[in-house]
Amino acid sequence: MSLVKRIFHTFAKAFAEQMIRPGEKLPSVRLCAHMFQISPSTIVAAFELLKEEGMIESQRGSGFYMSENFIPRAQSKLLRQNSLPMKENMELSIDDSWLLANVYQADNSDYHSVGCGWLPADWYPQQEINKALRDTSKSTQIANYGYGTPYGNENLRIYLAHTLAERSINVRHDNILLTAGASRALDLISSAFLNIGDTVLVDEPGYCNFLSSMLGKHIKLIGVKWTPQGPDTEHMKKILEKENIKFYFTNPWLHNPTGASISLNGAHRLLTLAEKYQLTVVEDDVSGDLLNPGKVTLSALAGLERVIHIGSFSKSISPGLRAGYIVAAPNTLNRLMQYKMMTGLTSSSIIEQVVLNVLQQTSYKKHLKTVRSRLAQAHRDIRKFFEEINWEVFCEPDEGYYVYGRPKEGTTDSRSLAEQARSAGLLFAPGYLFHPDHKNSPWIRFNVAFCQEKKEYLYPFLKKIGKTS
Amino acid sequence: MSLVKRIFHTFAKAFAEQMIRPGEKLPSVRLCAHMFQISPSTIVAAFELLKEEGMIESQRGSGFYMSENFIPRAQSKLLRQNSLPMKENMELSIDDSWLLANVYQADNSDYHSVGCGWLPADWYPQQEINKALRDTSKSTQIANYGYGTPYGNENLRIYLAHTLAERSINVRHDNILLTAGASRALDLISSAFLNIGDTVLVDEPGYCNFLSSMLGKHIKLIGVKWTPQGPDTEHMKKILEKENIKFYFTNPWLHNPTGASISLNGAHRLLTLAEKYQLTVVEDDVSGDLLNPGKVTLSALAGLERVIHIGSFSKSISPGLRAGYIVAAPNTLNRLMQYKMMTGLTSSSIIEQVVLNVLQQTSYKKHLKTVRSRLAQAHRDIRKFFEEINWEVFCEPDEGYYVYGRPKEGTTDSRSLAEQARSAGLLFAPGYLFHPDHKNSPWIRFNVAFCQEKKEYLYPFLKKIGKTS
Repeated sequence: MSLVKRIFHTFAKAFAEQMIRPGEKLPSVRLCAHMFQISPSTIVAAFELLKEEGMIESQRGSGFYMSENFIPRAQSKLLRQNSLPMKENMELSIDDSWLLANVYQADNSDYHSVGCGWLPADWYPQQEINKALRDTSKSTQIANYGYGTPYGNENLRIYLAHTLAERSINVRHDNILLTAGASRALDLISSAFLNIGDTVLVDEPGYCNFLSSMLGKHIKLIGVKWTPQGPDTEHMKKILEKENIKFYFTNPWLHNPTGASISLNGAHRLLTLAEKYQLTVVEDDVSGDLLNPGKVTLSALAGLERVIHIGSFSKSISPGLRAGYIVAAPNTLNRLMQYKMMTGLTSSSIIEQVVLNVLQQTSYKKHLKTVRSRLAQAHRDIRKFFEEINWEVFCEPDEGYYVYGRPKEGTTDSRSLAEQARSAGLLFAPGYLFHPDHKNSPWIRFNVAFCQEKKEYLYPFLKKIGKTS
Repeated sequence: MSLVKRIFHTFAKAFAEQMIRPGEKLPSVRLCAHMFQISPSTIVAAFELLKEEGMIESQRGSGFYMSENFIPRAQSKLLRQNSLPMKENMELSIDDSWLLANVYQADNSDYHSVGCGWLPADWYPQQEINKALRDTSKSTQIANYGYGTPYGNENLRIYLAHTLAERSINVRHDNILLTAGASRALDLISSAFLNIGDTVLVDEPGYCNFLSSMLGKHIKLIGVKWTPQGPDTEHMKKILEKENIKFYFTNPWLHNPTGASISLNGAHRLLTLAEKYQLTVVEDDVSGDLLNPGKVTLSALAGLERVIHIGSFSKSISPGLRAGYIVAAPNTLNRLMQYKMMTGLTSSSIIEQVVLNVLQQTSYKKHLKTVRSRLAQAHRDIRKFFEEINWEVFCEPDEGYYVYGRPKEGTTDSRSLAEQARSAGLLFAPGYLFHPDHKNSPWIRFNVAFCQEKKEYLYPFLKKIGKTS
């Protein structure tokens, strides 16, 4: 019997024999780990099983209690099971999602990727990046050669505070923590505020690498149905009525994979719910710079006590920088800074100088406008083509990288379609990747820029598929 | 030790480490008996001992409680603070070590830091970095604008495989994973292979930020006494005979804080022990590029099945890059790559191109030689001064940043000396920071480059101290 199961049975017996009574507090995880001389994560796993069986309940910040109304049954679900729902240690869940994510993260010249999360190289502001590198080479500031400061380059943070005001986020530079990209920001937030076994809300469908990463850290995910107007708040309310959940991780603007942005009304309803249920919203705004001007943010609407905001330069300047940031209330940000330092010290002062040097070029603003119109045109092109071949789209964004499409008739599982595409030399991002449980999905995420660049390969393939299905 | 005494000690430790707090109820006698799988009378006997020591009190008919006014002897300052609202298991240990580490990580113009872990700005290869930035700006390679690949820039890895051969590490580029610095590499290794509550061996004294970070992740640390010839293998053997330990994290070359490098014979004895006890050695070789040519590595001696090797460009090129790497066996490296991707995707392709462009300049090799001789001269200077003022040194390295010094007479606690220095405008790195439990230490870590640059402030201060003590 595994160690986790043994601990589970020890407590199950303690309940059955009234060594612990309903409503009574259990010894803490640390104390149990110490008494049994095993790792706390094993205790946590055992407690999770007890919780699933309804034997115990957790009270945030206060520990675990025997459930008031638990009546020991002869045969619990777990006793009938052979396998454990949770691994004993921090095993990664390396599944096909992860592997495929890596496949389409790599530059793979054997295939034409039309589902990836980046732009064709010449859509990036190459001239501006190159000028920024040269400008950085001219500076002899001490800051470029040292570790920099824990929160990151101060001038860049001052500049950001300025530009964030355009999105109605009114903050000072000391509300901003620079990180090595938005993914690193998401990891810092989950590491700093979540425990193994905690449950959080996520968009469903949602960003596949993030879902894999959270599952790999043994965070439980409950998907909130994502609609063309944002999260389904009725669905969310039902979940929050039942479960004690503290965080919702969402990508509300130019949502990955659907391309949809939350409506103003949807944002208001979400934030009203968040206030009612004391939910902290983590707003992953990784594509924010691709939005046309004038869009607000959740953090602007509800304030930094309710929303942690994440920004990035990966979608607008280049993912090769690994530069992003977190905007949060001072206490939250301080804790995140400590995690940042603890897990790798400062972020790159050189890269931060390069980013600032890009942002300050007037030609960069022009470039951004150009990219936005190129993406808008690419959206219109692929939508027109989808109409021709009788496909439908989840929604009709004119901004950002993604459109979520599916054949109106025929196949209901995009997995097999992705396999056919692969045989034809095309890499798709099939919808099941964007569900925590990898359930079947008829949808496919397309990157409109690559759909345009790889038109000559993509269009004939999709036409052929339509005829044979 | 008797069973009763063992139970006594288990609880004494639980009190000392605040698993149970003053006034809190202990698990019942029946529950303890059940959890330890021993008879209730043994628990009662152990509780009697705890009561005699004033650790617990009984309340008639209600059980046992930890005494309100019992103060454990070994209680550290941190345990008394209890300032931050913490998660139950992933607690950060934000203590004075961490804060001080941050103080001397920041550029603080109000103080002259002579204990820090970096170089004066003009000791870095500024010309080479600037040229590398310009060269990077000329390249229009797709790799500079995209995410890059999970393992990192292939050309840099090929170049590294080449130069590692000079340290007798014969590997291919696919044995190398690029990371955002050595600290990030240490974090990836501990995240990928350790569970909360695991115990590992570390150098004592050892790298303070690493110790804080590991304690913050609830890894237990056992210090192996560090000598001028490397780890005390007799001490290590005694620990390994008693405990089942799988990892030893060491910084064997130009050791932080002592400056000592492991002797060849010491390396052989360490690796023989490691093989006998199936210990994996993590060789943090962050300052390796500052060694004079010809030095081997632990990984070269024992191979990658036994040793995980970490390298960095922070000490030789610039910490502002955040660039380092891990050399390991394929399976190990694959797992680390997955953790890297999971916690923030790829490392910066732009920075990696800059690093490669620095390494390929012949003037960089010349620069390295110059820095090595400047450091050697700085070592000789401070040693000469120490002799004048009757200080002793832990050992006499002529390479790297650090020398570990102490007054031969007078003070035995460097903490108060560091406080005096601070009042005089000087930042020291006192020895207690480099012990996991922050025990008193008479030693102080000095950065020889800054000792030379800040001579006019440092020397008079140390002379004055000598006279008044």
